[in-house]
Amino acid sequence: MLLTSDVKADVALLRAKAPLTHCLTNFVAAGFTANVLLALGASPAMVIAAEEVQAFAARADGVLINLGTITAVSAAAMELTAAAGTPWVLDPVAAGVLAFRTGVATSLLRHRPAIIRGNASEILALAGLEGRGRGVESTAPSSAAVEAAKALALRSGSVVAVSGATDYVTDGAELLEITGGHPIMTRVVGTGCSLGAAMAAFLGAGVPPMQAAATASAVFAYAGERAAAQSRGTGSFAVAFVDELSLIGTQD
Amino acid sequence: MLLTSDVKADVALLRAKAPLTHCLTNFVAAGFTANVLLALGASPAMVIAAEEVQAFAARADGVLINLGTITAVSAAAMELTAAAGTPWVLDPVAAGVLAFRTGVATSLLRHRPAIIRGNASEILALAGLEGRGRGVESTAPSSAAVEAAKALALRSGSVVAVSGATDYVTDGAELLEITGGHPIMTRVVGTGCSLGAAMAAFLGAGVPPMQAAATASAVFAYAGERAAAQSRGTGSFAVAFVDELSLIGTQD
Amino acid sequence: MLLTSDVKADVALLRAKAPLTHCLTNFVAAGFTANVLLALGASPAMVIAAEEVQAFAARADGVLINLGTITAVSAAAMELTAAAGTPWVLDPVAAGVLAFRTGVATSLLRHRPAIIRGNASEILALAGLEGRGRGVESTAPSSAAVEAAKALALRSGSVVAVSGATDYVTDGAELLEITGGHPIMTRVVGTGCSLGAAMAAFLGAGVPPMQAAATASAVFAYAGERAAAQSRGTGSFAVAFVDELSLIGTQD
Repeated sequence: MLLTSDVKADVALLRAKAPLTHCLTNFVAAGFTANVLLALGASPAMVIAAEEVQAFAARADGVLINLGTITAVSAAAMELTAAAGTPWVLDPVAAGVLAFRTGVATSLLRHRPAIIRGNASEILALAGLEGRGRGVESTAPSSAAVEAAKALALRSGSVVAVSGATDYVTDGAELLEITGGHPIMTRVVGTGCSLGAAMAAFLGAGVPPMQAAATASAVFAYAGERAAAQSRGTGSFAVAFVDELSLIGTQD
Repeated sequence: MLLTSDVKADVALLRAKAPLTHCLTNFVAAGFTANVLLALGASPAMVIAAEEVQAFAARADGVLINLGTITAVSAAAMELTAAAGTPWVLDPVAAGVLAFRTGVATSLLRHRPAIIRGNASEILALAGLEGRGRGVESTAPSSAAVEAAKALALRSGSVVAVSGATDYVTDGAELLEITGGHPIMTRVVGTGCSLGAAMAAFLGAGVPPMQAAATASAVFAYAGERAAAQSRGTGSFAVAFVDELSLIGTQD
Repeated sequence: MLLTSDVKADVALLRAKAPLTHCLTNFVAAGFTANVLLALGASPAMVIAAEEVQAFAARADGVLINLGTITAVSAAAMELTAAAGTPWVLDPVAAGVLAFRTGVATSLLRHRPAIIRGNASEILALAGLEGRGRGVESTAPSSAAVEAAKALALRSGSVVAVSGATDYVTDGAELLEITGGHPIMTRVVGTGCSLGAAMAAFLGAGVPPMQAAATASAVFAYAGERAAAQSRGTGSFAVAFVDELSLIGTQD
């Protein structure tokens, strides 16, 4: 696939603005996520203390809240962060699988995320339907969550992005489809988590929510395809994926 | 070294079942561990909240509890996790070096792990002998802990795996030796931690404990040897190691 | 650039002693930091529990305290760690940006770190001046913090290292400048954090503070230059950087 001129323009804008992107994310994907953000040109920072998150989120350009390794302590910090008023992305990891985090995710919706990004199971669960998630992975294809995504978007006032073989982005009215990418992306930890972070970075650069979600998805699909074509296995894929993100726009 | 047909069959089984592998592990090796599990074909998930761990462990296929960056809070979650009844692996990182974690590890033995995996110092310490550990590394060769491993296996009812230049696996009666691997494996963080996780994944695929421990050790020795032969230094070794794990069985 | 014989001798000493390097660091850079320390020949360990840190720091050879993902809980553990009496490095991530961590950093100065390593904004802030930091990155060039570094060194009794395009190391009287490196180093997470860890490892090997800070900075500049010359983007740079560290002294 090729990147459209609109997507390239968004990446150029992100590089010019280097948005301060405040991530409350899981410790499994944190390093990879930071490297993805740096490769794109954003300025990531992962401040987590209850004493600091609200003030920091208020001065950040974009915010990510990812529930991966949530605890009661971090859930409280997430509430403070979401209330700061900066455009933010909710990644409701494994919502629907466990009651505690489903409750946290639902509660956070009060602070109206600009974008909700999840796999089909997570979006189905947040929409109040049967998510059938298993662990942190979806058991349903992304297409199965399109109607749920529209309903969730209308109810929450957020743009909803469903990640999968095809990515869908909707505000309840319009529906964008992003194809591309490669199945190997599901075998590297953090590709989904860092996609949510990238959406927060594009928001932070001033890109509107629908476009921020679609652009980040397109950039990931593009880098994933190119990286897959040059890697031996999943280890070298992860390295090549970050390389490709860092090279966008530098080779034209 | 070559993989035996038994080991290849176990890997094929793991890939077919994609066992949900619940890891309570340290934040240093968490990302690498997840990538190792994904490369092997397992489905990793790192849920840590006291509100969630027991329910999640109960639905997981295999569980890892690794004491690396333990705190009083995570120790309590580990107790809940171990009590869930799913086959689990104990990795008693630095047991014998610090009284707090030695106590936690000893207490966790009540929940009878299917496998205890450690280096020689850790196994000596859990067996009640002088472990002479220094930090997270062993100061004794794995062969020095074989008798301690047998005694610990008989006392705990667990299979005990001692990692080192030669890996030993015992249930107190039988003793398996796995050779191979490469010394560079000790210079990359997480090779030991992710070995315990791989054992949990094989358990989760239905492989019996002795065989799960031996198969995981053989797979790591194989991938380590092959990766060492194609890497410049420790950075590219880590990448090639994950590549090799992801390629097992795909090239025959 | 080439490494001087003094720097090579320090690396050889570190490899011979394999100093136990106790890191209380952020979870974002923890894995990369451990791999950097292992590549250099140190023995890293990341023990964080209040029940364990003081005893462990007392037996470690060198200690790093990095405020990146600080919380009230970890701040208390840092106080205990710093009080253990082992030579230690303070990395005051984002000091000056947020009042909570600025207070923690200031309080930790009572335990007199052997080395304070930060970017210009952080050093300016700790010296009581306007740091103008933005997130975890400096908005000022390292040269802008030289006078502040000298003043902070005289007041704290610590060696102060300011990282940037040029690195400065001072005890308030002498000033060392280390040039080299490559701008891509700022686009990989953990290059700064692991530099502080490397300084702790050199301290742990018995290298005096001024020399430990300068040697670590020179080694990073050297490896950064070489890695940049052989990498496609930021992903492969990070891998090559660890490779280069692991190869120092093995190819002569």
